[in-house]
Amino acid sequence: MKEFKIDPLDKENGLQVKSYIDTLTKPPGSLGKLEQLAIQLGEITSQQFPSVTPPGVIVFAADHGIAAEGVSAFPQEVTAQMVTNFLNGGAAINVFSKQIGAQFKIVDVGVATEIDGEHLIKEKIRYGTANFLIEDAMTRDEALRAVEVGYEVSEKLIKDGIKCLIVGEMGIGNTTPSSTIVSLVSGRDVESVVGFGTGITQENILHKQQVIKKAIEVRSPNAEDPFDILAKVGGLEIAAMAGAMLAAASNRIPILVDGFICTAAALIAKLINNVVSEYMIIGHRSVEPGHRIAIDLLGKEPLLDLNLRLGEGSGAAIAFPLLLSSTLMISEMSTFTSAKISSE
Amino acid sequence: MKEFKIDPLDKENGLQVKSYIDTLTKPPGSLGKLEQLAIQLGEITSQQFPSVTPPGVIVFAADHGIAAEGVSAFPQEVTAQMVTNFLNGGAAINVFSKQIGAQFKIVDVGVATEIDGEHLIKEKIRYGTANFLIEDAMTRDEALRAVEVGYEVSEKLIKDGIKCLIVGEMGIGNTTPSSTIVSLVSGRDVESVVGFGTGITQENILHKQQVIKKAIEVRSPNAEDPFDILAKVGGLEIAAMAGAMLAAASNRIPILVDGFICTAAALIAKLINNVVSEYMIIGHRSVEPGHRIAIDLLGKEPLLDLNLRLGEGSGAAIAFPLLLSSTLMISEMSTFTSAKISSE
Repeated sequence: MKEFKIDPLDKENGLQVKSYIDTLTKPPGSLGKLEQLAIQLGEITSQQFPSVTPPGVIVFAADHGIAAEGVSAFPQEVTAQMVTNFLNGGAAINVFSKQIGAQFKIVDVGVATEIDGEHLIKEKIRYGTANFLIEDAMTRDEALRAVEVGYEVSEKLIKDGIKCLIVGEMGIGNTTPSSTIVSLVSGRDVESVVGFGTGITQENILHKQQVIKKAIEVRSPNAEDPFDILAKVGGLEIAAMAGAMLAAASNRIPILVDGFICTAAALIAKLINNVVSEYMIIGHRSVEPGHRIAIDLLGKEPLLDLNLRLGEGSGAAIAFPLLLSSTLMISEMSTFTSAKISSE
Repeated sequence: MKEFKIDPLDKENGLQVKSYIDTLTKPPGSLGKLEQLAIQLGEITSQQFPSVTPPGVIVFAADHGIAAEGVSAFPQEVTAQMVTNFLNGGAAINVFSKQIGAQFKIVDVGVATEIDGEHLIKEKIRYGTANFLIEDAMTRDEALRAVEVGYEVSEKLIKDGIKCLIVGEMGIGNTTPSSTIVSLVSGRDVESVVGFGTGITQENILHKQQVIKKAIEVRSPNAEDPFDILAKVGGLEIAAMAGAMLAAASNRIPILVDGFICTAAALIAKLINNVVSEYMIIGHRSVEPGHRIAIDLLGKEPLLDLNLRLGEGSGAAIAFPLLLSSTLMISEMSTFTSAKISSE
């Protein structure tokens, strides 16, 4: 099994970045959270002038057997249809990736049907997970392989030069395994985690909560073993996202985390290596109630709060310009001395 | 006197934009505030696919006689030094303007000393305002002229093609007239409005509050007459910012509002023509306590909350990519029909 080794943050460089920010032509501290972001990027990258461009966006797609229980507002075939939409450049994440000049990759790690496309990365591990109300979502080996696939795709993109990682997902039904993961890892009850997903009714929420409670009872995953959780509830894209984040942290690249599914994957990654969360920045606060629980567990505050609940990595991509602003502040602003300004 | 005529919003087009957004390949409403933004931009511009690029940033600079009362953390000479910094491209607003591809203009409407610079727009109305604890900040004619200068510079930039207006300011001491304006217009007491500005101490805050209370008593501005307020407390750059916003609304261009000084100017603009605020989007929530009071009066919610307190237009520029995202969502995403996706 892979080691997933991650260095601690370079706190010393963070302090140096902080000192330098205080010499820039603005009242000390007046750029608030942008200054804290810049310091964190200094700790992550060990660079005096951290860079986050170009960012890379990887969308992992997979299907979920649990969709058969009627937990989503959309039919399962939409996963494959949306992958085609991603390949054609028409989805929200395509638009926002283009806006921020990102390298964009879409990976099939487990869609239930065959999909073709020149730019599709085909790493299908199985044709969707099994319905985890009835049986384990996948084997432990498949879970490990899915994490490794995410790691490998991410590492390749990093070697190609991306300086910030955004991971997104497509998988009809995937708020159900995500809610299960967040409930398991946080120890919070299912009711406080489950929300409207992409748009189910109040009645369906109650049904979704029942499905998850029953599944936790019959599957009984070990909440401290990330691979046991993944094997028992899924999903393949969640595992791959966790792997991609581990690769970013291993390579000392910041991870800009998206909404609910992405934070569930972040919790899995943190169970694999606790240090990974120090490399994370939370893009936004999702409408989904479990998201707040997950980001509290990660010990983070989100940058944006815009009532987003789309996924795909879209909220992270929308937040990316703030990271860019924080780096440009350091690299392009003049200092009081260079601009000959009376500091006080 | 100029008429400052502004059309009402095109609510009909807003409804059409809303209907179109619901056909895009994402769960309805899942892009939250970005969807509301897109609808507002539809109402402002009457365009099916509103555009906000390129944006324009105008920074108005002026000095304040009230600075002699020791209300700022910085000496008055910093205003002129910072104008030179703007001209040389080293200030925060330069960096963020460049990031968003903005047209950038810097206007001297009342700096206390002579400044030169190839790219400086020279519209100096007087060499700083008078100390409004002792006498009126300026004459009513000067206040009107300052509003008109802002209007004219803004209108020229709009004629040159900008599609979104950001106004910023530089003027050591200008949180003092701004606090006075917000207190007057809101009817709230001075204590609840005045904050740390660019970094004064708790003791200095008490002093600043005393100065403002005394000045309101002796100047006794008519809180319903924007030109009386401007004449009695200033400042020249605040008047010009108000004028620039009126020009944007008259030309049906969205106004992306910055922090505390900018919202004080927005309140003045709204006293001149009440409709102007419908063209405004608030970029961020400033740390300054009066900012919250001002945006409540404008009937708005800010996009960002990042503990910024720099001014210059910087917070608005940082928020601009969100407006861009909302317009790209409409113009570039595919629809369920065009992408052949099962909608439900």
